[in-house]
Amino acid sequence: MARVTIAGMALFDFELINVDPSTSARRGRFLTSHGAVETPLFMPVGTRATVKGVLPDQLRSLGAQVVLANTYHLFLRPGSDLVREAGGLHAFMNWDRAILTDSGGFQIFSLADTLKLSDEGVKFRSIVDGAWHFWSPEDNMRIQEDLGADIIMQLDQCPPYPAEKEFVATAVKRSADWAARCKAAHRREDQALFGIVQGGVHLDLRLESIERLGEIGFPGYGIGGYSVGEPHELMLESLAPVCAALPADRPRYLMGVGNPTTILEAIAAGVDMFDCVLPTRTARLGTAFSSEGRLNLRNARFARDFGPLDGACACSTCTQYSRAYIRHLVNTKEMLGAMLLSLHNLHYLLDLTAQARAALEAGTFGEFLSAWRGSPACDDY
Amino acid sequence: MARVTIAGMALFDFELINVDPSTSARRGRFLTSHGAVETPLFMPVGTRATVKGVLPDQLRSLGAQVVLANTYHLFLRPGSDLVREAGGLHAFMNWDRAILTDSGGFQIFSLADTLKLSDEGVKFRSIVDGAWHFWSPEDNMRIQEDLGADIIMQLDQCPPYPAEKEFVATAVKRSADWAARCKAAHRREDQALFGIVQGGVHLDLRLESIERLGEIGFPGYGIGGYSVGEPHELMLESLAPVCAALPADRPRYLMGVGNPTTILEAIAAGVDMFDCVLPTRTARLGTAFSSEGRLNLRNARFARDFGPLDGACACSTCTQYSRAYIRHLVNTKEMLGAMLLSLHNLHYLLDLTAQARAALEAGTFGEFLSAWRGSPACDDY
Repeated sequence: MARVTIAGMALFDFELINVDPSTSARRGRFLTSHGAVETPLFMPVGTRATVKGVLPDQLRSLGAQVVLANTYHLFLRPGSDLVREAGGLHAFMNWDRAILTDSGGFQIFSLADTLKLSDEGVKFRSIVDGAWHFWSPEDNMRIQEDLGADIIMQLDQCPPYPAEKEFVATAVKRSADWAARCKAAHRREDQALFGIVQGGVHLDLRLESIERLGEIGFPGYGIGGYSVGEPHELMLESLAPVCAALPADRPRYLMGVGNPTTILEAIAAGVDMFDCVLPTRTARLGTAFSSEGRLNLRNARFARDFGPLDGACACSTCTQYSRAYIRHLVNTKEMLGAMLLSLHNLHYLLDLTAQARAALEAGTFGEFLSAWRGSPACDDY
Repeated sequence: MARVTIAGMALFDFELINVDPSTSARRGRFLTSHGAVETPLFMPVGTRATVKGVLPDQLRSLGAQVVLANTYHLFLRPGSDLVREAGGLHAFMNWDRAILTDSGGFQIFSLADTLKLSDEGVKFRSIVDGAWHFWSPEDNMRIQEDLGADIIMQLDQCPPYPAEKEFVATAVKRSADWAARCKAAHRREDQALFGIVQGGVHLDLRLESIERLGEIGFPGYGIGGYSVGEPHELMLESLAPVCAALPADRPRYLMGVGNPTTILEAIAAGVDMFDCVLPTRTARLGTAFSSEGRLNLRNARFARDFGPLDGACACSTCTQYSRAYIRHLVNTKEMLGAMLLSLHNLHYLLDLTAQARAALEAGTFGEFLSAWRGSPACDDY
């Protein structure tokens, strides 16, 4: 790990600022070459080096600290060599704050219709043109170094749900082996490489995964293999012991989870980082997070509702546009509908996590979570 | 006409600030309830009360003075009564500068698969649900009063090209009759009602149309029935005598024309106002206006071009993003591609007309036009 320091902080060292007395929630901070990252945080997803329908300037205004991009999609188009030639993802997509790339493992296993898996690596077909590609963990590191994100993820095997326990156990072992190979192959000191915990809904396998990864040692840990179809309660149940088993002095990143209530419950369980396509994907479908719970703007009851999308929200959409107007845009498939709802939904999660950070600083996270659980907004999990 | 005055100017009175000595171009100004309008100008089109892919704040930053919306589309969805209840188009779409609505005549005649036309009005089928609707000129005025734009257009009959001269002559007469009925029915003094010149490519019919409209008297004149399929040269040839026959002290609005060179040539012929979907529609198709002529960003030659979209352009797209990145967005059908190209293309035409105004003020429009005609950008007409 690089020992670069800025203002007394070493690059990627995780500073615990505050620990909640009533839950396992933590207020933390770590440094990247593109600024400090304050946790807990939500990271908007820009799969193909763009958060759909949102300009980088707008993401800055919304307070986004880290944007996630996808190695699988960018490897296929425009190609990681092209991104490297462009000066890396930051220059390519005009984003000067931190970037995280996932390894693409999840996409290979969930998107590809056919793949050939071995201990050596994974052979998969492109969803773009059907061409075969092979990735070893070492190949994947080289690609993510070309993309040049601040935080990169190990190549892992993410089993679906349901899956035979035997199958999940094999995935845990293989992912741990690949974690070690990724670490050995990774060269860029300005990037943090995170290991990924697997094990599905089996706590013993999760703990085995954590033990293996801990032996290798990483500056942060992804918690993968959740939100793949398992009952919601199973995830929340196992999350607390998983977090407890992870080192306290490293950030914990629950991959692909973004419902408001799930984020807050996971923070209470000890998670520090989140990403999800939910705010922008649901926006394109015409739905909005709100203090009243999820709103479907296609609903006829909004046709003549000239009030704000969410009266409790201070975002640029809620202060300037009516439900009736947004419904009109959604109904007529106008781009602006998806744009306004994306801005609102991203604000909603970025503001929610900012509120969680403030409550942790004030030592009132327990009350904050209780109030949330009693609110209509809590229905959105 | 209303005699409201602001700072010594009467609402909708057209002030001629400067007339070019070498062409028929004019630098003018008129007042609306939502601010002064400086001519010549280009008006971005927001068909369904939204300029596709662009936020009102961005339109303001781009210097848009007037946005056009479409009576036909808004009548069908969300309905003009709903827009009235919202407080009119300005409140509905969050645009506090001037708005112009066309009457919908053009759409009825170009979009509807079936229609029944009589001197009384026009019966047409909705493109949304196939329902029949009937508009008299009086109905159309009531609808446009509900929408509440600053400038509204008479209901007219817009013949296609080619059409029998007899047919075009009938359309001229009917449009003039409807112009008189529109004026008689129109009540809102905060709106300017423009007549529309028809006559296709027949100068004698154009002059007859102008004479009829002049007898009725309007604060401004649309020049319709161009850009409907006729050879480009035919339009430019007849435009100068048409403008010359129109009263000098009224703004002239060439409807639906937006190619850079055509705009400048039409300004030289005496046109003051333009609108077109071209900047946003071509943006969604992946093409950009530029000082080098039109660029198709799908072209493989841009794949590794890390320079700006147009090196001569100062817009937010050209100063922040590369051709390679925009090509990637266009190739992967990302919304941001259409958004960035829309912002650039709108800037291009708004800046071009601002340059024309500045040249007219400086008395150098002739030189400005000559320089344009000799530039690679001139190919875009």
